[in-house]
Amino acid sequence: MSTKKLLFDRVALIGAGLIGSSLGRAIRQEQLAKSVTAYSRRSDTRKRLSHLGIVDSVAESIEEAVDGADLIIISVPVGASEDVAVRIGPHIKPDAVVTDTGSVKESVIRAITPHIPNSANFVPGHPIAGTENSGPEAGFASLFEGRWCVITPTDDTSESAIDQVTNLWRRVGSKVDIMTPAHHDKVLAITSHIPHLIAFNIVGTVADLEGDTKMEVVKYAAGGFRDFTRIAASDPEMWRDVFMENREAVLEMLGRFSEDLSALQRAIRRGDANSLETKFTRTRDLRRRVIDAKQA
Amino acid sequence: MSTKKLLFDRVALIGAGLIGSSLGRAIRQEQLAKSVTAYSRRSDTRKRLSHLGIVDSVAESIEEAVDGADLIIISVPVGASEDVAVRIGPHIKPDAVVTDTGSVKESVIRAITPHIPNSANFVPGHPIAGTENSGPEAGFASLFEGRWCVITPTDDTSESAIDQVTNLWRRVGSKVDIMTPAHHDKVLAITSHIPHLIAFNIVGTVADLEGDTKMEVVKYAAGGFRDFTRIAASDPEMWRDVFMENREAVLEMLGRFSEDLSALQRAIRRGDANSLETKFTRTRDLRRRVIDAKQA
Repeated sequence: MSTKKLLFDRVALIGAGLIGSSLGRAIRQEQLAKSVTAYSRRSDTRKRLSHLGIVDSVAESIEEAVDGADLIIISVPVGASEDVAVRIGPHIKPDAVVTDTGSVKESVIRAITPHIPNSANFVPGHPIAGTENSGPEAGFASLFEGRWCVITPTDDTSESAIDQVTNLWRRVGSKVDIMTPAHHDKVLAITSHIPHLIAFNIVGTVADLEGDTKMEVVKYAAGGFRDFTRIAASDPEMWRDVFMENREAVLEMLGRFSEDLSALQRAIRRGDANSLETKFTRTRDLRRRVIDAKQA
Repeated sequence: MSTKKLLFDRVALIGAGLIGSSLGRAIRQEQLAKSVTAYSRRSDTRKRLSHLGIVDSVAESIEEAVDGADLIIISVPVGASEDVAVRIGPHIKPDAVVTDTGSVKESVIRAITPHIPNSANFVPGHPIAGTENSGPEAGFASLFEGRWCVITPTDDTSESAIDQVTNLWRRVGSKVDIMTPAHHDKVLAITSHIPHLIAFNIVGTVADLEGDTKMEVVKYAAGGFRDFTRIAASDPEMWRDVFMENREAVLEMLGRFSEDLSALQRAIRRGDANSLETKFTRTRDLRRRVIDAKQA
C-alpha cells in the first residue's frame, strides 16, 4: 500500500455497513479515487454516515449515488442484490466497473448480471474478511489487510475490468484469488457459512436451555462458549440471505458435518476413547497450517 | 490480589500443564505459599518445568511431591484422576487439603474420594478458564483473573477446607461459585464440552474435504472457520477424557443441539427466511449479556 496512484475518479458505495464502509475508508486512506459517495437504504444509516465523515458525500438516492461513478461497489445483504441492480442499471455510465462483495456468488451473479448494461462491466467479488460487528461505525480501513479477496469472473467478464478490481483489492492490502462462482460457493459454505450456522445454532440451544433450566450459561461462557456467541452476533439479515442464496452447497456441507458428528456421538456413547483421541489430534495440524498461512 | 498473606506452607502441583502451571505461577506471584513443588508424569515435562523456573522445586516422584504438602492441587486429564489418587493417598499428611481442577466433577469425585485418607479433606473444583494451548510453557499467572471457579462440595466436604480453597481462588483473581457436581457437569456440557466437540468435528470435516477435493480451506479460514480451528487445537488427551467422563450430560446436550440443527436445516431447505432471521436475531442478545458479564 505504498504507491499513491488514483485508480478511479468517482466511487459509489451501494450499502455502507461493515464491509462497504471499511472499503470506503481504505479507498480514501490510500487515495485510490478522487471522490467516494455512499448510499444506504435506511435514512438513519445515511445520517450516521454523514456524521462519521468517512466518505466525501452521502447520496440521498441510489440513482444519485451511481450517477457519473466509474466504480460502483455493491455491499448489501445478498438477497437485496437484484433490487439494487434493477435500480442502478439505467444509471450506470458507459465503461463503468460494477463489483460486489457478496458472500455467495452464483445466485448474486444471476441476480445482478441481466441488469448491467452491455457498455459496463460487472466483476463479482468477495473479500474473506469481517468481524461480528455490523453497521458503518464497525468498519475500519485495515479490515482487508493480509486477507484474501476472491474474484469469480464469468465467461463474459472483461479482463481489463478484472484487472481494475484486482488492483483495488491489492491496494487496500488484500491478496487476490480467481475461481469459478460454483467453487467459491462450496469453499465458503464449509469455511464460513457452516461455522456461522453452527454458532447461531448452539447459541440458540443454550438460550433455550437457559430459559428452561435457569442454567448460568453466561457466567461460564469462558469455557469455550464465548467464541460461539461472538460469531453468532453477526448481522442476522446478511446471514439469513446467505443461507437462502447458497442453499445447496450449505445443505451438502451440513450433511457431511452431521454424519461426522454422528460418528463422534457414537464413539462417546460406546466409550471409544482411542477414536476420540485420534480425531482430536488430527485437528491440531490444521490449526498450525492456519497460523502458518497468517489467517489465524 | 492486594493483601500479602500466606495461605499455605507447602503446595504440591500434581500435573503442571496450562492450568497447573498457571496456578503455580499465580501462587508464587501472589506469595500465597512458602514453597511450590510440581510433579509431572513425563520426565520431559519435568525437565521443562525445571528449566522454566516457575516453581520452587520439581519432584522426581509423585510421592516426593506430596510429602509434607498442606495443599495438593491435581491438574491432570480427568481420566488420570483415580491413578493419581491411588498413588498419593498413602502419602497425604493429616489435615492437608486436596483439590483438583478437572472439567468434569461427578466422575472425578467418584475416582478420587475413596483414596483420600479421612484425616485429609478433598475439595473438588474447576476454574472456568483456559486457552487452546497446552503444556507448562503455555501457562501464565493472570489466567484466572476475572474468571469464575466452581467448587462442587459433597456432603462430606469440610467447610473450613472449602473456605481455604475459596480463598486461594479469590487471591489469584477468580470469583467463586458453589454448586452440586451434577449441576456443574450439565452446565459445562453445554457451555464448554459441546462447543469443543463441535469445533473438533467441523475441523475434522474440513480436513477430510480438503483431502478429498483439494479445497483451499486454510487460505479462507478468516471467514469464520479460524475460530473453530483455534478451539479444536486444544489438548486431545484432556478432551478425550472429558467426553468419556461426562458422557451422559454431553449426549443429552448433543441431542438438543442436533434437534435444533435439524430445524435450521429444514428452514434452509424450505426457504423459510423469516424463521432464520428470527433465530439469528435472538442470539445477539446472549452475546451482549456475555459482554456485560465481562466473560467475552
